[in-house]
Amino acid sequence: MGNVEVFAERMETLRKNGRKNSIDAFLVVSENNMRYLAGFSTLAIERFAGIVLPVDTGVPVVIVPKLEETKAKEMSAFEDIRSYSDSESPSLLLNRVVRELRLEKATFGVEGTLPFRFCNMLHAASPRIKTEDASTFLSQLRCIKSEEELRMIEKAAGLVAEGIRSGIGFIKPGVSELAISCQIERTIKESGGESIPFCIVLSGANSAHPHGQTSTKKVGQKDIVLMDVGAVYYGYYGDLTRTVFVGQAAKKEREIYDVVAEAQDAAIRSVRPGAKAEEVDGAARKVIENAGYGEYFTHRTGHGLGLEVHEEPYIAQGNNTTLEPGMAFTIEPGIYLFGKFGVRIEDNIAVSKTNRRMLSRLSKELTIV
Amino acid sequence: MGNVEVFAERMETLRKNGRKNSIDAFLVVSENNMRYLAGFSTLAIERFAGIVLPVDTGVPVVIVPKLEETKAKEMSAFEDIRSYSDSESPSLLLNRVVRELRLEKATFGVEGTLPFRFCNMLHAASPRIKTEDASTFLSQLRCIKSEEELRMIEKAAGLVAEGIRSGIGFIKPGVSELAISCQIERTIKESGGESIPFCIVLSGANSAHPHGQTSTKKVGQKDIVLMDVGAVYYGYYGDLTRTVFVGQAAKKEREIYDVVAEAQDAAIRSVRPGAKAEEVDGAARKVIENAGYGEYFTHRTGHGLGLEVHEEPYIAQGNNTTLEPGMAFTIEPGIYLFGKFGVRIEDNIAVSKTNRRMLSRLSKELTIV
Repeated sequence: MGNVEVFAERMETLRKNGRKNSIDAFLVVSENNMRYLAGFSTLAIERFAGIVLPVDTGVPVVIVPKLEETKAKEMSAFEDIRSYSDSESPSLLLNRVVRELRLEKATFGVEGTLPFRFCNMLHAASPRIKTEDASTFLSQLRCIKSEEELRMIEKAAGLVAEGIRSGIGFIKPGVSELAISCQIERTIKESGGESIPFCIVLSGANSAHPHGQTSTKKVGQKDIVLMDVGAVYYGYYGDLTRTVFVGQAAKKEREIYDVVAEAQDAAIRSVRPGAKAEEVDGAARKVIENAGYGEYFTHRTGHGLGLEVHEEPYIAQGNNTTLEPGMAFTIEPGIYLFGKFGVRIEDNIAVSKTNRRMLSRLSKELTIV
Repeated sequence: MGNVEVFAERMETLRKNGRKNSIDAFLVVSENNMRYLAGFSTLAIERFAGIVLPVDTGVPVVIVPKLEETKAKEMSAFEDIRSYSDSESPSLLLNRVVRELRLEKATFGVEGTLPFRFCNMLHAASPRIKTEDASTFLSQLRCIKSEEELRMIEKAAGLVAEGIRSGIGFIKPGVSELAISCQIERTIKESGGESIPFCIVLSGANSAHPHGQTSTKKVGQKDIVLMDVGAVYYGYYGDLTRTVFVGQAAKKEREIYDVVAEAQDAAIRSVRPGAKAEEVDGAARKVIENAGYGEYFTHRTGHGLGLEVHEEPYIAQGNNTTLEPGMAFTIEPGIYLFGKFGVRIEDNIAVSKTNRRMLSRLSKELTIV
């Protein structure tokens, strides 16, 4: 996905931010950041792969294992792609690139996740190289999504919605959480989902665990069923949760469902450029607190979505980040009555120029199956 | 899993190897190495968690986020577990631990994967601390499996075998690769598999791609179907491949199947203490070369298995590692005729005191469904 201009623009912004902060060059090796800057990625764990990006002049250089060279050339717009074979040393190649780009005395901005052995390769290239954590430059850049990126999240959220709909159709007493989960996964994969990193189905008292695990437990006659599903489309995440009722919804269950739905609505309505992340969290929290369930809402209201399932901005107490158009995140308040049941409703949303744009579309009417 | 003595023994060996190599202490943070040394792990990506292990004296210290403290205390035998809350700095806590253990001038052995930001925390604790890549100490230690670990791999391989058997029963013309894959995954999960990191089903010409991806392609009347599945049980991997025929097996297909099966047998028979890893690779390769298909066997014969799906020892050309009792790995030769079909047969095996012990048990008779 993406075109040459998009990647050029992202790199230009990164360069500009680097220049402003006395960084001479970036070394980017993580799968997600490579994908973001170069349009392709390779899992740099066993073998080194990365982008060397000088901030001032000079063409960025991509280094990949020989095996990945064709992919890199086909999928990226980089002019300068170098590769090393299994019998060559990526360290020597990096050394050569550092010299060619005259970065022997450079301060490199690197990722906070940069593996020790790759960091060593950089220092081995020249003893005068310095390294600095530049993670925030990259996360700030990635935090504001382009129209194309929003469409990818929307598409991923659409796949999840389709999966959950199919899961709801599959629920009946006696069917296991696992069987429902497999049904959802299969639907998403058949509709083109790249991967389904999590597909959590919790029934009855299991739903009261915000981080519960899908089990072979069978759905009971009057269980609540909570489904929290994340799927990836072209690298981008969609992440939705729905909670439905089997057979009936007791008075208390209805009450709590309505509070959660109302809290979610309030948080959604508070999303607009200029609002603080913590205000959105506060909008949901206030509804739940006013209903007397404050202590049962034990997590943050949401998290950013993009090439990672958890990224900036976090919709949480104490986060005074100002929302800007293009930011995308989840809104997912919940109430958990330990030993009884839990309700969570999660949708995906982006900040638009005027207020907000829903990225997910799936009914949250109280549903009894 | 595991008991106090097992973990104490592992740490003692690591300490001994550290002392021999002028390392004063280890900092271990990766999920797998923590699980190996401490019996529990926490995903140290967003938050810091790790073990500080001095090689000479002093009790090892475990640092975890507050959220993980209960788990750490329940699941590990460490006496000294420290935690920090979300509003405290793990950096300060690490600093305190370094001082208490008098490691201000220590050379720390760290993992090659240690994230830059955690490495920085260590250097910030004292400017005189040195860091060295100690990955090989850990991989050498993990390379020799205990009886308990072998049983975990055996159990994981058993789950995969069950999944593949169920997948074979599900294959018929018109069923999609994806549907077969879902059937296998569901069977493994229902039987207690912790996770199924990959479940690749390739049919017809797709099977000729050693790294192909499961698709919505439907199985044809006379297709070959290749299934390569990895599942985890208590952290340990099993990894099997079977290739079966739909409707019939043409003469050429039978011939190639027999060559691969024979190559696998030859490699299996060559496994014994004292043999070199490359000799096992050579045993399989020789059979395939003699049959005239050498150029179509495009990958190594196998890889080590344990807490990771790829670890030491690699059963590959040029690896002269001497096999020792307790090493566990895959044997998976294959022949790939591009545009036509591919055959791979993969089993899991360990080196025993006298020769070998199969860790997987699943028929590899030529099967027509």
